[in-house]
Amino acid sequence: MKKILIVLLVGSLLFGACVRRKKEAAHGGVKTRLKIASSYNSALPILGDSVKIMADRLELSSGGAITVRLMEPQDVGGLQAILEAVSSGKVDAGYGSAGFWAGKMPAGPLFSSVPFGPEAGPYLAWMKQGNGMKLYQQMYDDAGYNVKVLLCTVLPPETSGWFRKEINSQEDLKGLKMRFFGLGARVMEKMDVSTMLLGGGEIYPAMEKGVIDATEFSMPSIDKKIGLYKIAKYNYFPGWHQQSTLLELIVNKDKWNKLPESQKALIEMACNESLMNSLAQGEGTQFQVMKDNVEKYDVHIKRWNDQMLKAYEQAWKEVVKEESAKDKFFDEVWTDLSQFRKNYSLWEDNAYLPRHRK
Amino acid sequence: MKKILIVLLVGSLLFGACVRRKKEAAHGGVKTRLKIASSYNSALPILGDSVKIMADRLELSSGGAITVRLMEPQDVGGLQAILEAVSSGKVDAGYGSAGFWAGKMPAGPLFSSVPFGPEAGPYLAWMKQGNGMKLYQQMYDDAGYNVKVLLCTVLPPETSGWFRKEINSQEDLKGLKMRFFGLGARVMEKMDVSTMLLGGGEIYPAMEKGVIDATEFSMPSIDKKIGLYKIAKYNYFPGWHQQSTLLELIVNKDKWNKLPESQKALIEMACNESLMNSLAQGEGTQFQVMKDNVEKYDVHIKRWNDQMLKAYEQAWKEVVKEESAKDKFFDEVWTDLSQFRKNYSLWEDNAYLPRHRK
Repeated sequence: MKKILIVLLVGSLLFGACVRRKKEAAHGGVKTRLKIASSYNSALPILGDSVKIMADRLELSSGGAITVRLMEPQDVGGLQAILEAVSSGKVDAGYGSAGFWAGKMPAGPLFSSVPFGPEAGPYLAWMKQGNGMKLYQQMYDDAGYNVKVLLCTVLPPETSGWFRKEINSQEDLKGLKMRFFGLGARVMEKMDVSTMLLGGGEIYPAMEKGVIDATEFSMPSIDKKIGLYKIAKYNYFPGWHQQSTLLELIVNKDKWNKLPESQKALIEMACNESLMNSLAQGEGTQFQVMKDNVEKYDVHIKRWNDQMLKAYEQAWKEVVKEESAKDKFFDEVWTDLSQFRKNYSLWEDNAYLPRHRK
Repeated sequence: MKKILIVLLVGSLLFGACVRRKKEAAHGGVKTRLKIASSYNSALPILGDSVKIMADRLELSSGGAITVRLMEPQDVGGLQAILEAVSSGKVDAGYGSAGFWAGKMPAGPLFSSVPFGPEAGPYLAWMKQGNGMKLYQQMYDDAGYNVKVLLCTVLPPETSGWFRKEINSQEDLKGLKMRFFGLGARVMEKMDVSTMLLGGGEIYPAMEKGVIDATEFSMPSIDKKIGLYKIAKYNYFPGWHQQSTLLELIVNKDKWNKLPESQKALIEMACNESLMNSLAQGEGTQFQVMKDNVEKYDVHIKRWNDQMLKAYEQAWKEVVKEESAKDKFFDEVWTDLSQFRKNYSLWEDNAYLPRHRK
């Protein structure tokens, strides 16, 4: 009996210590599994691998409390199915661009990339310090989607596209069939270009078969991955249509609300880290690819002349007018962003040295 | 006896469950206490509060596994004592600027802010994608400091300074006594300005007593906090001396090496989040302050004329020559950064729309 009492005593002590330790367990011991559907093929640099890196960092930094299963677009029935899948809880989260949901919510592209729009610095400032994130969340809420939205990646400018011939005037664009994304596509339509939106993997074959004559996709390092330098030798700049591009992580709201605060913070931190690293990676990895394109693959790097840039900008102003007239929320977001940029210009015009300084 | 056996059985089951739970405890149950000495008064926006926010996020996201004690400069014997305190392990980490250690390591300021140097995007790209971070760590290692360095905050441009009179020529600068930081101070000396480095809290009294005639400190939102708009009415732009400024977290290397990988990742993520949020906050919170300065406090916002900017740049080139001749490592870092920027210009010159576009 004495022995048994000793065993019981030791057992109680062990259990007591154990209870104290439980209190110390991070995240209240809550294990979270996240199924994240990505809109991009995971082989693409930045666009595709940022969410992969983010997932690895989440698992590592949570000490294993969070585990992530990444899914490719085809695993959930294609890119366009991702928003519904997240909202319904079929998957926990989706990674991609609000520009993809333009058919459902016309203001979507304004939270992804704006022609003649802000560069990364002021775009992030509007999102995080201005009304951007508030309006972004409101868009999903008002449209009845059960998602919480976070910014998760930012890209510096894209190239303005790949052509098979030199483009010196609007005349040269007329009748071209071109792959184009977002609001920029609407601008190209005004320039008498027929546009269609194709996924990264579909572009090269479409160029090869003559389904399209020209294409834009992303930055040089990403365009390289899908082989555009092989099939079109005139690469145009600047990317007036996407001076910066924001990507989102949308999380099913019920899932989000049930997470411990510590894990919400972890996901936010992983996304903010991804924003920072994608900016640095985007800025730091283009020049070598451009140099190789010219020196090894006979690509011509061309800059739009002023006349062409003015024509694009004029067409963009018409698109804004039409979209604002059609959709009240588009108008509200556009007005807010425009006001922010107008205010911001007092700072920008004074604080920065001229960029094209030699 | 039967009862006792049942109690024992239940006890064993509970203890078994408890052991399994222990395995799930994030960070291997390791509790970490971090004493971080900041170089800035915690009341300053961005400069002072970024590390405070970072500390809160670390505690929250680690589920309490990491606790932070923040210390002000005076708690460790002043700003200049921080590096030694971290290296010796008297404190675990220090938050501030490598520019403060110029007396110990002449290349230090190149990792903090460079006159006529890169803006935030390319500076971060050099750091994270180029050789920047490698050289930065090497500087501390070669000088015998036992620290691991992380980037932790980035500021958009500073203002170029606050003067009591209009400055239209080099003649107007001659003989002024001015508070100035980093390599920019060396440039001002070439312009026949006497410079001294004062902490944020010392500037206003020094202006008041006539110890200095003029000062630069930081961005409008930060300068506001120390009351500069009250005591000098000519605020000059652009901040040629600091187009962007990087702040560091240095961690005692023994402390760092002993941390579980999960906690290293957490600290890196907290710093990357701080980089992202300081960039957005810096970009988004200046215009209102500038507007108030003009409308409420009769501040004149002035932009240096081209002649003055050229004079500053010429003086800066002389400073670089002198520093490079004096210190081999300064020369090495400067050469690497210059080569990176030269390469980067192929991208920058093509990808971006002109900034001062109306």
